Amino acid sequence: MDKKEKVALENALTRRFFLAPAFEIYQGVAGLYDLGPCGAQIRQNLISQWRSHFVVNEDLQEVCCTCLVPEQVLIASGHVAKFADLMVKDTATGECYRADKIVEEQLQKRIDATTDAALKHELQTVFNQVDGLSQAETDKVITDYKITSEAGNPLSPCFPFNLMFQTTIGPSNPQKAYLRPETAQGIFMNFKRGFEQARGQLPFGIAQIGTAFRNEIAPRNGLLRVREFEQAEIEYFIKDRYESVKNFHEVKDMKVNLFSYQQQLNGEDYYHDITIGEAIEKKIINHEYLGYFIGRCQQFLVSVGLDVTKLRFRQHLPKQLAHYAKDCWDCDCMLYCGWTEIVGIADRSAYDLQVHSKASGTDMSAFVKYDTPVQKELFSAKAVMKILAKEFKQNAQALKQAIETASQEEYERISNELPTGKFTILGLQLPAESIQLVKAMQSVHGESITPIVIEPSFGIGRIIYSILEHSFYMRENDEMRTVFKFNPTIAPCKCAVISLMQKDELETVTTQLIRQLRKIGISCKSDDSGVQIGKKYARFDEIGIPYIVTVDFDSLTDKKVTLRERDSMAQIRIDIATINQTINDLVQGYVKFEELK
Amino acid sequence: MDKKEKVALENALTRRFFLAPAFEIYQGVAGLYDLGPCGAQIRQNLISQWRSHFVVNEDLQEVCCTCLVPEQVLIASGHVAKFADLMVKDTATGECYRADKIVEEQLQKRIDATTDAALKHELQTVFNQVDGLSQAETDKVITDYKITSEAGNPLSPCFPFNLMFQTTIGPSNPQKAYLRPETAQGIFMNFKRGFEQARGQLPFGIAQIGTAFRNEIAPRNGLLRVREFEQAEIEYFIKDRYESVKNFHEVKDMKVNLFSYQQQLNGEDYYHDITIGEAIEKKIINHEYLGYFIGRCQQFLVSVGLDVTKLRFRQHLPKQLAHYAKDCWDCDCMLYCGWTEIVGIADRSAYDLQVHSKASGTDMSAFVKYDTPVQKELFSAKAVMKILAKEFKQNAQALKQAIETASQEEYERISNELPTGKFTILGLQLPAESIQLVKAMQSVHGESITPIVIEPSFGIGRIIYSILEHSFYMRENDEMRTVFKFNPTIAPCKCAVISLMQKDELETVTTQLIRQLRKIGISCKSDDSGVQIGKKYARFDEIGIPYIVTVDFDSLTDKKVTLRERDSMAQIRIDIATINQTINDLVQGYVKFEELK
Repeated sequence: MDKKEKVALENALTRRFFLAPAFEIYQGVAGLYDLGPCGAQIRQNLISQWRSHFVVNEDLQEVCCTCLVPEQVLIASGHVAKFADLMVKDTATGECYRADKIVEEQLQKRIDATTDAALKHELQTVFNQVDGLSQAETDKVITDYKITSEAGNPLSPCFPFNLMFQTTIGPSNPQKAYLRPETAQGIFMNFKRGFEQARGQLPFGIAQIGTAFRNEIAPRNGLLRVREFEQAEIEYFIKDRYESVKNFHEVKDMKVNLFSYQQQLNGEDYYHDITIGEAIEKKIINHEYLGYFIGRCQQFLVSVGLDVTKLRFRQHLPKQLAHYAKDCWDCDCMLYCGWTEIVGIADRSAYDLQVHSKASGTDMSAFVKYDTPVQKELFSAKAVMKILAKEFKQNAQALKQAIETASQEEYERISNELPTGKFTILGLQLPAESIQLVKAMQSVHGESITPIVIEPSFGIGRIIYSILEHSFYMRENDEMRTVFKFNPTIAPCKCAVISLMQKDELETVTTQLIRQLRKIGISCKSDDSGVQIGKKYARFDEIGIPYIVTVDFDSLTDKKVTLRERDSMAQIRIDIATINQTINDLVQGYVKFEELK
Repeated sequence: MDKKEKVALENALTRRFFLAPAFEIYQGVAGLYDLGPCGAQIRQNLISQWRSHFVVNEDLQEVCCTCLVPEQVLIASGHVAKFADLMVKDTATGECYRADKIVEEQLQKRIDATTDAALKHELQTVFNQVDGLSQAETDKVITDYKITSEAGNPLSPCFPFNLMFQTTIGPSNPQKAYLRPETAQGIFMNFKRGFEQARGQLPFGIAQIGTAFRNEIAPRNGLLRVREFEQAEIEYFIKDRYESVKNFHEVKDMKVNLFSYQQQLNGEDYYHDITIGEAIEKKIINHEYLGYFIGRCQQFLVSVGLDVTKLRFRQHLPKQLAHYAKDCWDCDCMLYCGWTEIVGIADRSAYDLQVHSKASGTDMSAFVKYDTPVQKELFSAKAVMKILAKEFKQNAQALKQAIETASQEEYERISNELPTGKFTILGLQLPAESIQLVKAMQSVHGESITPIVIEPSFGIGRIIYSILEHSFYMRENDEMRTVFKFNPTIAPCKCAVISLMQKDELETVTTQLIRQLRKIGISCKSDDSGVQIGKKYARFDEIGIPYIVTVDFDSLTDKKVTLRERDSMAQIRIDIATINQTINDLVQGYVKFEELK
């Protein structure tokens, strides 16, 4: 997309109200956007395709959790302490910048400007790592490369700024709370209930589509860096990241572009068109789960209209990983403003369930049955009640309980203490004779583990914007006529029905056709203004309506109408009687327009 | 629904994870609920039915606005000053109550307890008005009727508590903001863009489905009074509330239950099964727009499975009206806890557009063309540049502009000033000779008006809960077997496919059927546990799955499977080859189960 196309796109988006700055009549708020009717329809179509691709086909449990989150949850998850970006201020004007972004912008300019290959390589290698640097390292880059504010003034040292919006809940003794910075936490809260519904079987997945909030330091680029955005996330709970994945064969031979962290550190080019199977074999991708979701993610993005040649999966540098992640591959999409992250596929390990289990005192483990029982040497213990009852009276029962249900680690400790004639339990010293501790071979049928979590996380707003860029074009020889070549499933409106001329007898048929199409749930526009038909076609192309039905005077006698396809502009005559069926088949993809000819 | 059924319902909702208190593992937060997979699916189905019923069929523009709203918007809308509930505190324990709710609860108990008809009538009449009382009036009722806290302690005088959650936006000089208390404001912000897309024609409507937030004083009753909830709102912009409505004939003969404000004030019974047409004629409903949306609302609620005999529309008492409303009809649904508001249909007049127009300085009017031009005596003015240029030099052009584009009111004033030899404009005194002001008959083609807004507003969570109550039943002679009789469109899962026994050859067919159903987007459960088939049927009934397919040994040879319908428990054999088509037709409502026999 060149500059001219980008300007034309922005014009089309505003003129046809795909989106607009929120609170525009009050001069807006940076980082807040509203979707207009076309944008909102694309959003719904996208979400509905996501549900069908992931929730239905992977048999996920979808949940719907709250945006308000009490503080203790986000203390446990690490967000209160660590969910921050480094910020710098212009020392003269006080303007705030996200440290990594201002450094990247200035490095990029120098990379583009220089012809010195060695310098270009050096700058590119620094550029690739900026996002993951510590506070001190960022300061060093700012000093070393003389990074300034946009106005050219010196920058302050950088400091962390927590990105969560804070509020309070309740009328008296208000409880501190935040707006969720990711939908994932709501899913972890419900892990146990989900696991119950999965009848205690791993793997299983929970999905959520919902709004998340980040108080960005310097929002920009329209829908790409905003303060309120929608995520579609899956938390897929597994036993072992190295086990083989049931439907892996479905993605094994898919070709993807991969940018490993080694390539980034070395300033190398990425892998073009490598199969997922090969990437796993060569350990470029660490395990089948990551590979499987990379494949499913690309299938999805292509199905909603993204250009597969403009997608690549980029592995996070170890230093870039979020505080909860062990590994992560972002899907980057090539846009006018450069490669932009639109999906992240993270291996969050057992981090979240473990921290919440500890902080809440709730057991979040899963009992995993072995295929065949395993023989293990294990301790077991019996309390000697005669002795306990005598010495500890009413506490004897509690001690018995503690003795007989202690963990293997506890028994190991007790076994080491026993030679002294005493042992400790529940903080009390007990005589060695009050326990019968034996170690023997036992049949073990399974074990309790904390599941590992694989998280594909989709940025809905960013994907919508990517679809807009990848779908936009201008008619050859007529730059004023802009078109979106949306898939019918994604197109904000499926068809239009118009009369060739403003005549009552035609309008009667048009109105009737619109009515019947809407009744079967097909969104349908009309245009009864006095302009000529070419102008109407152009108006519909401008919002990407794939099919236009025109009622003319012949329609009154031959009971046929003209059906026009958007991109080819080809027209055919079809029977009025079959119009519902035909449009529905085209929209659902059951039939192609060329096949109708 | 009796107490026993209510308990069984609550059990089913928890056991099968329709919903759960949010942050349960951290002891929860009052007024916050999560939807589990069944609840979330019902929500989506409901929303999708709402879109098809309203957005597609009424050709509305759907928008998607932000939850974060800067303070100035909510100052203008009146929410900062007026969006408050009256609160009282237990003077001994400090516990907070919503004043109207604690008064209503205690009055209801006394109404139920008394056999004295006169007292009952008096209490009921007070009860009907509690919601709309002023601070002083509420205090008087609390004193007169000796209302106490739940613990029996005296209550504090009542005081207003603003229900909006507050936060700030941005890193430095943070901007005060609130979480939106209703989705409507986002729509008003976008009125101008929407009107442009409607090509400047009234009436037109904008819809929005989204989360809203109210810091309720005392949340309770599960999904019915929560702090974070979803609304589906329409703002329908019209020229004149008394004009006739295009599709009014579609609702004219519909029967509804209406509870007018006079009936409530007089303690009378409501109108049962009155047609909307008759209600308009008798001026029970003030205009066709309110009547039309009451009808469309009832059609919708019935289409998603609510019992029409348990719905009534109740008009707000003049004192109960929100600060922006001129008239309002709530749809109340009869639930275990009593009549509960689930939809509100308000006439907001031009209030919102006017206040935002004034506060933002943006013109929010619509030019309405008359059917035929009207002759009116009007002022028009021309500036005399010779005089202006001489006296006002570089300001002359601005004065000319002001003189020639002033309003009729301004001209009226100027005309009255002229006899003094001077007149004022832009704060300057000008000689009378610098203006040529004439009054003459002119042809007027239309006028600028601020549109009136009719607002149907649906509480999604409350409707979900109502569907759950109205759909729940226990099998005759077996109270342990609970069922939800959801419509197929609303049912969280459309079908289940199971094997009669755990045998590989059956499982192969089952797996294949599930796969192909999911591929066409039909959600499909299975159950490969070792329990007997009756138990599996019961598990599916419990979440309201309408159709169950069973693969048995005959299936391997006759290529047929058993299809069971949930409520009748009737079973038929159908061809495996037609299963996709059959299930799809049943779910879409193209065919009824009885017709398949």
